[in-house]
Amino acid sequence: MNDPSRVAVVGATGYAGFELARLLLRHPKIEKPTFYLRGDGATAHCLTEIFPQLRGWGEAPCRPLSVDAIVKSGAGTAFLATPHEASLELVPELVNAGVCVVDLSGAFRFREAQTFSRWYKLPAPDAAALKQAVYGLPELYSNDISGAKLVANPGCYPTSVILGLRPLAEANWIDAGRGVVCDCKSGVSGAGKEPKRDTHFVEVNENFRAYGVFSHRHTPEVTEHSGVSGDRLIFTTHLLPLERGILSTLYVWLNEVRRADEVEAVFRRFYAGRPMVRIWPAGKLPELQHVTRTNFCDIGFALDESGERLVVVSCLDNLGKGAAGQAVQNFNLMHGHSESLGLI
Amino acid sequence: MNDPSRVAVVGATGYAGFELARLLLRHPKIEKPTFYLRGDGATAHCLTEIFPQLRGWGEAPCRPLSVDAIVKSGAGTAFLATPHEASLELVPELVNAGVCVVDLSGAFRFREAQTFSRWYKLPAPDAAALKQAVYGLPELYSNDISGAKLVANPGCYPTSVILGLRPLAEANWIDAGRGVVCDCKSGVSGAGKEPKRDTHFVEVNENFRAYGVFSHRHTPEVTEHSGVSGDRLIFTTHLLPLERGILSTLYVWLNEVRRADEVEAVFRRFYAGRPMVRIWPAGKLPELQHVTRTNFCDIGFALDESGERLVVVSCLDNLGKGAAGQAVQNFNLMHGHSESLGLI
Amino acid sequence: MNDPSRVAVVGATGYAGFELARLLLRHPKIEKPTFYLRGDGATAHCLTEIFPQLRGWGEAPCRPLSVDAIVKSGAGTAFLATPHEASLELVPELVNAGVCVVDLSGAFRFREAQTFSRWYKLPAPDAAALKQAVYGLPELYSNDISGAKLVANPGCYPTSVILGLRPLAEANWIDAGRGVVCDCKSGVSGAGKEPKRDTHFVEVNENFRAYGVFSHRHTPEVTEHSGVSGDRLIFTTHLLPLERGILSTLYVWLNEVRRADEVEAVFRRFYAGRPMVRIWPAGKLPELQHVTRTNFCDIGFALDESGERLVVVSCLDNLGKGAAGQAVQNFNLMHGHSESLGLI
Amino acid sequence: MNDPSRVAVVGATGYAGFELARLLLRHPKIEKPTFYLRGDGATAHCLTEIFPQLRGWGEAPCRPLSVDAIVKSGAGTAFLATPHEASLELVPELVNAGVCVVDLSGAFRFREAQTFSRWYKLPAPDAAALKQAVYGLPELYSNDISGAKLVANPGCYPTSVILGLRPLAEANWIDAGRGVVCDCKSGVSGAGKEPKRDTHFVEVNENFRAYGVFSHRHTPEVTEHSGVSGDRLIFTTHLLPLERGILSTLYVWLNEVRRADEVEAVFRRFYAGRPMVRIWPAGKLPELQHVTRTNFCDIGFALDESGERLVVVSCLDNLGKGAAGQAVQNFNLMHGHSESLGLI
Repeated sequence: MNDPSRVAVVGATGYAGFELARLLLRHPKIEKPTFYLRGDGATAHCLTEIFPQLRGWGEAPCRPLSVDAIVKSGAGTAFLATPHEASLELVPELVNAGVCVVDLSGAFRFREAQTFSRWYKLPAPDAAALKQAVYGLPELYSNDISGAKLVANPGCYPTSVILGLRPLAEANWIDAGRGVVCDCKSGVSGAGKEPKRDTHFVEVNENFRAYGVFSHRHTPEVTEHSGVSGDRLIFTTHLLPLERGILSTLYVWLNEVRRADEVEAVFRRFYAGRPMVRIWPAGKLPELQHVTRTNFCDIGFALDESGERLVVVSCLDNLGKGAAGQAVQNFNLMHGHSESLGLI
Repeated sequence: MNDPSRVAVVGATGYAGFELARLLLRHPKIEKPTFYLRGDGATAHCLTEIFPQLRGWGEAPCRPLSVDAIVKSGAGTAFLATPHEASLELVPELVNAGVCVVDLSGAFRFREAQTFSRWYKLPAPDAAALKQAVYGLPELYSNDISGAKLVANPGCYPTSVILGLRPLAEANWIDAGRGVVCDCKSGVSGAGKEPKRDTHFVEVNENFRAYGVFSHRHTPEVTEHSGVSGDRLIFTTHLLPLERGILSTLYVWLNEVRRADEVEAVFRRFYAGRPMVRIWPAGKLPELQHVTRTNFCDIGFALDESGERLVVVSCLDNLGKGAAGQAVQNFNLMHGHSESLGLI
Repeated sequence: MNDPSRVAVVGATGYAGFELARLLLRHPKIEKPTFYLRGDGATAHCLTEIFPQLRGWGEAPCRPLSVDAIVKSGAGTAFLATPHEASLELVPELVNAGVCVVDLSGAFRFREAQTFSRWYKLPAPDAAALKQAVYGLPELYSNDISGAKLVANPGCYPTSVILGLRPLAEANWIDAGRGVVCDCKSGVSGAGKEPKRDTHFVEVNENFRAYGVFSHRHTPEVTEHSGVSGDRLIFTTHLLPLERGILSTLYVWLNEVRRADEVEAVFRRFYAGRPMVRIWPAGKLPELQHVTRTNFCDIGFALDESGERLVVVSCLDNLGKGAAGQAVQNFNLMHGHSESLGLI
Repeated sequence: MNDPSRVAVVGATGYAGFELARLLLRHPKIEKPTFYLRGDGATAHCLTEIFPQLRGWGEAPCRPLSVDAIVKSGAGTAFLATPHEASLELVPELVNAGVCVVDLSGAFRFREAQTFSRWYKLPAPDAAALKQAVYGLPELYSNDISGAKLVANPGCYPTSVILGLRPLAEANWIDAGRGVVCDCKSGVSGAGKEPKRDTHFVEVNENFRAYGVFSHRHTPEVTEHSGVSGDRLIFTTHLLPLERGILSTLYVWLNEVRRADEVEAVFRRFYAGRPMVRIWPAGKLPELQHVTRTNFCDIGFALDESGERLVVVSCLDNLGKGAAGQAVQNFNLMHGHSESLGLI
């Protein structure tokens, strides 16, 4: 039988993978994370060969990737920090073998298989597996996540945008006739560990730029879960000259005049009892520094004098609440632990 | 008589002042810049006492500030890199004495004296001087600037926003029913040289934050000159962890479906013959790096598939086109020189 | 009676103070840290008023500083994250009242009272208290620390230099006729939270400079504990454009030809059983990134072909092993806990 | 006949190449720089295709590389911003064809051909060409450079170290029995434009590390020209998290007690009449910020109380005085122009 305290981690050689390794090595309910490596890195026997800075801090065995080996190890859960292509293949195999999966790729995030294919230019995900997939945003879907066999861990940008907009959308406060603008900025670790022209120090440092305007793959996640219709929304992404963190500035015209305390109350009610979202008091805005290296999503806002124009600031760590931390939060819910276990 | 090649510079001890000094020392039509210092720095006799990195590069005399001395020196133009309070006082005195003024402060930027008072919480500017003031945005008002005695040099944020929106507003392409969003990001040199909590390295580095939302003093400049009504527009500012540069992401819903080549043409026509604005071809967006340490404002855009949602990116160097460079550009126009003299 | 699980923290409003707060709130053997505030901050009632980013993560009561209150609270240990002047006064009072003290200031670090006075231009520390003071470098003086009532927590630079040189000095390998050079580089958080010209973002970013050459206050600590005579050693400090971390490059001429494996063995023997020092294998050098946000000191080296010229690289986090982490490590030893408790 | 105002630039697609392009486009004695491209970039017809940020600022024709074309164009001088391998081949061809060459690679920097081969693991440079090569450090060898047909432009690190040590070596002030330590730190642009693991933003930002200890290719240049014997000297290099600039901290034990004014006088005498080296007054040290984006090398020093231990700080811009600026300075000397023409 599968042991819930035993987990497998696949492909954790990038920045989110390192963060995941750190969290799992410290998690009080996880006994034995084993790391399964793909391709070139697959010769390592222990984690500090890959991440020497973990010496003296934590250690775990590494093995070449094999679904059989994962199944035989009795792992109750597999975390996939793999490219979309690899997840497309591995997820169905693992789910069919009875292993719970938290997949950090985009492969199983969308309700319709063709949404993934269209935006990622890749084959459609397995239909049977997709049917079981739950979008892993705990603040919205904790019930579904609790019983899930397959959780598609959300993208970093969508997490920040959806958590900032959804309470207003559900309260039906957004003026549908005006547009909603989501101006998002991210640190460089979100672009991955592979050296590219765009991540060369000299091209990022003392620089700032928009990218992927109208074509970013995270767009359909925002559309599906923010509560705002896609044709009413503009979502853009920018690259900040810093390592980690996403700050999204969200622009909303309200359909009625509101007071700041009413706005604050809407957010507070929506996130009551959710330990990983922190609402800032009216008049104070969160900064990136407040959330980096945490699993918090901080939300603040400013309302103009007229009471109709609202700016919401939502920020998080793209490797924490935007990736590895959220994966652990999902794991906690799947196994009946407290949502924030090992994350605070 | 005043000598047009002789200029006085007042208060050039900050970051914009240094940039101005560098430009004036190299300007081919300026013979003798003299620097007039206020307060504590007023003991320096030459510029390299204030800016040791100028040794071997350029030198100029420094004197304690005195309007009389400026007038008697025969200076044709005075550049004021002074606080708003000082400009309120100095501008009328200099203008009345027949010295042309380029004022980098906010004191004479607004059509109505009370606009300044309300946003800056300071006394109203002298009415007679204000009447003569021209808003020094050369791409919009070069004719007025040519004959001006007093040019109010624009703020850095407004320059980037106005140059990005005005062509669309004049073409009457903006959907008035939807809102226009101006999400602006600036480097730290814009916050001045005074050490403050907010400019401490540790508070800026690896951090990003919005500030002055709905209360930034540059708001009324945007409203007066962008061509977009203030109640239709949201203007926000953010602090980037880098020294210099402003990048504004401008969100516009068009009132008719357009093609990208039409959008590009609108911008190209509007800025035909203006050497300091560079329009990027459709599909390519300028980056901060392209404009830092220049006097260019670079403008690019992305149009969505529907042809209705337009994102404009406008960027410049806040100390260059956003301050000192623009001041020299204004000086050039006032004295009949080529607009870009000493700036390219 | 004093309760060892109850601690008082004085003056923790700076960067090292914040780090200390984070560590103590998570320490498994500390039940109730209470924060005593000096001066202006003394109105806060709880820690998140001072550090809003701690909300949802940890909370602790704040009170205005009073030695009486600390004593009456039954606190077994007081951590002083106070200026030298304040420590001069508080340390004797607390020690006399039977409270164990870990002092992060420089006041009680030197064997001779006048060493402190000369380098810090301040009154001499209380003689009776100084007699009880132990220099809190656990890898050298763990026995003394175990029974100490007063531990003077070392400076950040000296910790990195001493740990890199002492094994070679004790092995008697250093050529006394040649000089030893300690070229040290630190991040900006070491300069404190007070906004100053030197810590303004624009003065640090994209800049690098040496400072305090031949006059840095940490010099006498290096001289007293590195095992190298002061007249044989040059110690310099530089400011890196980053938040945290110190990397010291140490240059030693050996008095005999050695092989790399012999050098490595000297370091490994010296630090056998010390969990917080990590020796890198010959040919690999540690980087700042490996130690930031940890309590490790990483040491690596390169030996030239001749076997006589040795470069040692020693690095640590100035707020961790260089300040707050080391203070907790000292606390652990004083109370018979494992040295690394709450630090890994 | 060759036209001295006509220059060819080969391979200027990297960071030093861009800097060179900017300088040559503004140089008052250069009429027509033509850019010859190698490999993939060779399809560009004009420079702004490669560097879009030059639009409106400067323009120049680009052609595929051909020695014949360079010769036929009548170019008096060719600047080679090419890899060592390419320079090995191109330099003899161009020199034999009567074109003066400034080579920015390492291929012709060493007196002995085998020094190059040993340190660069490449074939030896052409013997005839090497015989004509002059080491292009103008402050030391301006006479030789004036008549040279082939100038080997020095490395960036060696320029800073040699300029800091040579005056002391020639004055015979250095204690030969003690060692000289050169601890050098460079920005990332020195590592080239090619994306590599080591230049990925996340691996550099908030990080600092030593590299190439005892194996850096710039070592033999330092040994040949600093005036200090190689076995008395340790030269190390470190990577700073910033774009440009090198700061070298040089440690010297003097063989006699000296006063600070004597030290300053040695430097001032040595560099009298050299416009590109700036000596700082005793007690003040130059910072990287003072020299970035200039062609200056700034030198300052601190002498300890005993008058025997001397720390020299020498800094420059690795793309300016360390590469492209120095190449133009050499060009000026070769053609009888003022040394600093187009550089200040």
